[in-house]
Amino acid sequence: MNSGASTATTIEDLRKMARQRLPRILFDFIDGGAEDEVTLRDNREQFDHWRLIARHPINVSRRETDVELFGERFAAPFVISPTGLASLARGRAEVALARAAHRMGIPITLSTASSVDLDDLAASAGGAARWFQLYILKDRVLSETMIARARSAGYTTLVISVDCPVVGQRERDIRNRFAVPLKPSLATMIDVLLHPRWLLDFVRHGAPKPRNLAAPGENSAQQLTSKMIELLDPSISWSDIAWVRAKWRGPLILKGLVSTGDARLAVKYGVDGIVVSNQGGRQLDGAVPTLEALPAIVDAVGDRCTVFCDGGFRRGSDVAKALALGARAVFLGRATLFGAAAGGEDGAFRALEILRSELSRVMAFTGCTSIGELTTAILWDAHRRAPYGMREIGAK
Amino acid sequence: MNSGASTATTIEDLRKMARQRLPRILFDFIDGGAEDEVTLRDNREQFDHWRLIARHPINVSRRETDVELFGERFAAPFVISPTGLASLARGRAEVALARAAHRMGIPITLSTASSVDLDDLAASAGGAARWFQLYILKDRVLSETMIARARSAGYTTLVISVDCPVVGQRERDIRNRFAVPLKPSLATMIDVLLHPRWLLDFVRHGAPKPRNLAAPGENSAQQLTSKMIELLDPSISWSDIAWVRAKWRGPLILKGLVSTGDARLAVKYGVDGIVVSNQGGRQLDGAVPTLEALPAIVDAVGDRCTVFCDGGFRRGSDVAKALALGARAVFLGRATLFGAAAGGEDGAFRALEILRSELSRVMAFTGCTSIGELTTAILWDAHRRAPYGMREIGAK
Amino acid sequence: MNSGASTATTIEDLRKMARQRLPRILFDFIDGGAEDEVTLRDNREQFDHWRLIARHPINVSRRETDVELFGERFAAPFVISPTGLASLARGRAEVALARAAHRMGIPITLSTASSVDLDDLAASAGGAARWFQLYILKDRVLSETMIARARSAGYTTLVISVDCPVVGQRERDIRNRFAVPLKPSLATMIDVLLHPRWLLDFVRHGAPKPRNLAAPGENSAQQLTSKMIELLDPSISWSDIAWVRAKWRGPLILKGLVSTGDARLAVKYGVDGIVVSNQGGRQLDGAVPTLEALPAIVDAVGDRCTVFCDGGFRRGSDVAKALALGARAVFLGRATLFGAAAGGEDGAFRALEILRSELSRVMAFTGCTSIGELTTAILWDAHRRAPYGMREIGAK
Amino acid sequence: MNSGASTATTIEDLRKMARQRLPRILFDFIDGGAEDEVTLRDNREQFDHWRLIARHPINVSRRETDVELFGERFAAPFVISPTGLASLARGRAEVALARAAHRMGIPITLSTASSVDLDDLAASAGGAARWFQLYILKDRVLSETMIARARSAGYTTLVISVDCPVVGQRERDIRNRFAVPLKPSLATMIDVLLHPRWLLDFVRHGAPKPRNLAAPGENSAQQLTSKMIELLDPSISWSDIAWVRAKWRGPLILKGLVSTGDARLAVKYGVDGIVVSNQGGRQLDGAVPTLEALPAIVDAVGDRCTVFCDGGFRRGSDVAKALALGARAVFLGRATLFGAAAGGEDGAFRALEILRSELSRVMAFTGCTSIGELTTAILWDAHRRAPYGMREIGAK
Repeated sequence: MNSGASTATTIEDLRKMARQRLPRILFDFIDGGAEDEVTLRDNREQFDHWRLIARHPINVSRRETDVELFGERFAAPFVISPTGLASLARGRAEVALARAAHRMGIPITLSTASSVDLDDLAASAGGAARWFQLYILKDRVLSETMIARARSAGYTTLVISVDCPVVGQRERDIRNRFAVPLKPSLATMIDVLLHPRWLLDFVRHGAPKPRNLAAPGENSAQQLTSKMIELLDPSISWSDIAWVRAKWRGPLILKGLVSTGDARLAVKYGVDGIVVSNQGGRQLDGAVPTLEALPAIVDAVGDRCTVFCDGGFRRGSDVAKALALGARAVFLGRATLFGAAAGGEDGAFRALEILRSELSRVMAFTGCTSIGELTTAILWDAHRRAPYGMREIGAK
Repeated sequence: MNSGASTATTIEDLRKMARQRLPRILFDFIDGGAEDEVTLRDNREQFDHWRLIARHPINVSRRETDVELFGERFAAPFVISPTGLASLARGRAEVALARAAHRMGIPITLSTASSVDLDDLAASAGGAARWFQLYILKDRVLSETMIARARSAGYTTLVISVDCPVVGQRERDIRNRFAVPLKPSLATMIDVLLHPRWLLDFVRHGAPKPRNLAAPGENSAQQLTSKMIELLDPSISWSDIAWVRAKWRGPLILKGLVSTGDARLAVKYGVDGIVVSNQGGRQLDGAVPTLEALPAIVDAVGDRCTVFCDGGFRRGSDVAKALALGARAVFLGRATLFGAAAGGEDGAFRALEILRSELSRVMAFTGCTSIGELTTAILWDAHRRAPYGMREIGAK
Repeated sequence: MNSGASTATTIEDLRKMARQRLPRILFDFIDGGAEDEVTLRDNREQFDHWRLIARHPINVSRRETDVELFGERFAAPFVISPTGLASLARGRAEVALARAAHRMGIPITLSTASSVDLDDLAASAGGAARWFQLYILKDRVLSETMIARARSAGYTTLVISVDCPVVGQRERDIRNRFAVPLKPSLATMIDVLLHPRWLLDFVRHGAPKPRNLAAPGENSAQQLTSKMIELLDPSISWSDIAWVRAKWRGPLILKGLVSTGDARLAVKYGVDGIVVSNQGGRQLDGAVPTLEALPAIVDAVGDRCTVFCDGGFRRGSDVAKALALGARAVFLGRATLFGAAAGGEDGAFRALEILRSELSRVMAFTGCTSIGELTTAILWDAHRRAPYGMREIGAK
Repeated sequence: MNSGASTATTIEDLRKMARQRLPRILFDFIDGGAEDEVTLRDNREQFDHWRLIARHPINVSRRETDVELFGERFAAPFVISPTGLASLARGRAEVALARAAHRMGIPITLSTASSVDLDDLAASAGGAARWFQLYILKDRVLSETMIARARSAGYTTLVISVDCPVVGQRERDIRNRFAVPLKPSLATMIDVLLHPRWLLDFVRHGAPKPRNLAAPGENSAQQLTSKMIELLDPSISWSDIAWVRAKWRGPLILKGLVSTGDARLAVKYGVDGIVVSNQGGRQLDGAVPTLEALPAIVDAVGDRCTVFCDGGFRRGSDVAKALALGARAVFLGRATLFGAAAGGEDGAFRALEILRSELSRVMAFTGCTSIGELTTAILWDAHRRAPYGMREIGAK
């Protein structure tokens, strides 16, 4: 059934399949970025700033892509990113993503804004390492309950998204709403796709009842976004991180940092990991490209903190560059979501296979037999036309 | 009636509405620049040289956009620029702009070449802070009269445009004149739109009578431009600034400086403010982009002079960058004029709302709760791929 | 009759008129460059590397564009370049160019490969300052005769083109020859346009008779080019310059230098002027852009040699940049030839008027009242985003 | 018969003729690169980083393009690259290439994956200097046999491709396979074109029989590629180079190095030559551009090793730049293969003539009379706007 997705050659193939399969309004919700989509483009173009230095002849007959994260071994340096409303891509996409993650042997991060319940995913994911992404909501009691539920449902690692004090303006969505008034059938479809359990949880804890999300002709996704915005707390600060740190014993990751100052504070507050991220260009348009922010952050935190990176990974060579610049692993958002949209679990797994296979090929060409060998020594600065950290050709 | 403009999402939306509403010849007059429009493009592209450094988590639940200018508090770091012949965008556009400025709580600058009279605007503006833009004309008596009238009509601040010794060649206008001979109806419309009070003032003071501007089939705007050119004085120099300074007690601003040498002279001549400006690309084509000239000027004048900036602001992030580079506030020309063209006062106010809302969102992402916190610390150099003032990635 | 050309707004307008008026094969001959036309593009894009620093307020009511070249005063810093086969643009184009030069008060340089005779031009040019361009041909006797004839016909300055040891491959011409076989009528027209006096001279001095250039169906231009190639001498070296220097008392200019080493040799061999030139992209494709080569050459020769520049001047601001970088005047090739093609003498004069008027406007904006005031102080480096010779914004 | 190819003006002309003549699937196989073809584009754009400094007047009436390689004199600084499956371009293309090489007086390198047998080429090549390219295959006995056969068939120089531990993903080919299912007639044509002698050799030495390559409807090229991948050995390392070095007395070249570290190792292992290469963008996409890697490698190995370069040469000026940066000669792959596809031996020879003629013209313009005079002194850095190794214009 998903043979198309299973045999896709590239992530771009999966993206095209997702575009064909999804109504434009939903595809754009996944594919788009904030405002002028400057950062969305930057996230792709940033990889062009680096070229790769091939090394030959080196015995690369055995190349291992496994990495250790917080004491656990994973088969590839990938983590599936939390993606809110992932089920807009496909019904219960989180389950498909989790099963694909399990097949590949990598962790999946469930979003606070997931449409699949924490326990439901735990039951359906077939043994995947599960991480939980938390928004610290205005309602701290609800936030605390979520932490407790994540712990009891066996989520090992807590990922706090700190880059959502407000929500980026997604102009494709706004334009689509005006240009493509949702037909009742599409609204119903969205309603069927979404199982907004977190909203139900919310209701159980005494918050005001959300309006009926399935009213024909209404844009449920838009409603959810608005509801989300209401819940998000622009007042969170480092003291809230200290509060979570006190409540969560397992690995704690902050997602959405790009400043070295903030990275140093994260270390100070006992955080175990950082995801250098601009939310795939969906929040601050014109943000620092993640690959540019990465080296200084790696330098600032040293081995006191595990650094991850996300943003625009579509090729194994993109991953290799981020790892060479110091990321321990990369978070994958749209790449696997396009896979899930195109072909469910098989499509999501195909996305992971493509990236691992391309990464392995880059390792062969750069003479690396393990992930740890990917260092700045394989990088060539395309602007300065010199190896990383070296002087330009012909400059004196 | 102006609901379209009132609900526009971006300044570009307002520009498109203006383009639909206005005859091409008038839209181009507002939208275009000099010669090859190199500077017009530069004014947009200059913002791409900078990226923004997000800071998280910081309590940004309260973000204030107000600024103090010359001892007075304004709700946002915006000043409405003087725009000659603004009524070509819409009848009595200056009144619409002034009312929008009043609603927002910011100053409006009336142009010497306004089609609305100084007193008329004072009466109609509903309490907006009014600044007056002066060309020092060949006829110094007329110039002095204008200064006196501005003072008595309650204009608080005098803005002298110093970058018009000659007039830039607007080739879109020239081409339009040839390609689109004005039909009598359009000429009449232009005549109705324009209430060339400054020309009437001019007549009252004994200057030669302008030819009838409303003759069907003639291009009144072109005539006005020619007339303006005749009145402009290419001989003005610093001694004229001294002359004005002696006559005007209130804050005095020079508009159109980009050189640090000139900025230092402005301080020496007792000027209170400088607008770093290339007139939106309408004068010298190939001029220094304002955002590039800004930091050195801020550095040169220190706190002896308030520095403003204009040129191509279409996004809150554009404003944030100029403020971070040292501008106290930005002058808005086309952005609010497109708003006025699209929807009168409501459209102009919508332009202000959009920019303030986007600016506020940038502040949330960069961890700033007041305008003063926007400094070079939030800037990332997109060319050198490093924070402002720091070394490049991987360079040694 | 030439009212179109007389009222053109820009050089680009004149180029478009020339394109409409000329058969494509002739327009391309004038407009095109060698091989991939990389240098042709560079010659335009090189001006984008510089921005102009406006200065205000300065009394610029009187702005003089005159310059002194070899003790003679000219009304503008322009020299009309020698252009081989100029009559392909219009019959006796050299006469039109000379008269336009006279009206403007600038020199014209007659090409060795002119279709108008040395004496004929002297008689028809109406008093223009006439310079003569010499190719040192294989036949040194012929070369010497040409020098003598130039002297006796009142040509004041000798310009030796040194950049033609071989001829650049003009691929537009080659493609046109294949794609557009010349119809007899076009061949006849070319024959009428061309009065190849220099070939007749050549014949008079005993060289082999050229084949009939007017044979219907043959491409006379191509024949002339081939003939020219046969005559050009790839063996000329500095000793030949010494030989010419001994024969010519007046100002001697070498055209086609871009290397500082060659410029120093020119000074050593007693040359009075240098034209930094890549022949408008018609010779070595991928050559150094002239504006990039200029400053080091000016620096190398100091005041021992007058430095000129050519290549892609289409705007007064282009001229201003070359002058600011140290050129005493610029050579104009296609700009005036497009004018002549579009409207004969009036068109050529209009080209000069446009450039002088634009240059004067740039002077007004940059606060310069004479050509000598155009220095690197008005230049802003667009790449380094700093004034000429200064450090980048935000770099430390 | 091949008059079109024989009179082509540029390599691009030959490429277009090849595109017209070949089925798209075969043209794309030759023309395409790996993954996103970033390196394919880089290989062309890298030449734009350099401009050429003309030198005049210098006696360039005699210009010699000959070079010495390993004690032998060749008429031009060109080597025909080994190209696997060259016969897809034209039946027995290797023979056409060898004869063209002989006419020009340069060496040809036969590929291990040639469809023409080692002895067959030796017999048909008409005296061309023959080099042999070796993949060190998993089957070392077969590899050793190939070395022995090359020696006995009079191949003078051994070129080991070290950049194929794995095979780059050619996505044009994958897409074509899906989009253009091979018709039986095309499959038959491919079968006729290919004379897979190396596979027959392979069979003779006891390896598993390849499936019938000519089965109608099957993609033989794809099969060959798969077969090749099976034979390639990702485990080869420097000890294998030592093993070959011990077996081969003649000049030994490693093809596919870009790292200075590897270049130094090559010297240490007694290698005589290095080809700085990224396989024309067919292997690692995003690899270092060869022209950028070249200078540091030349610097690292000094005169202990002869350095060659390949990648994207389409113009004589491209060749001149590589030679100026230190390459002794360049390897030509697609340029001559397009020629062979367009016109067999005559087309391949025309490609060589074009490049030699363009190179000679560049020498005339840069004042060089022999290949040895092409040094960094003729190079201008287009990014830094300064001669090679000098400071930027206006920088201090």
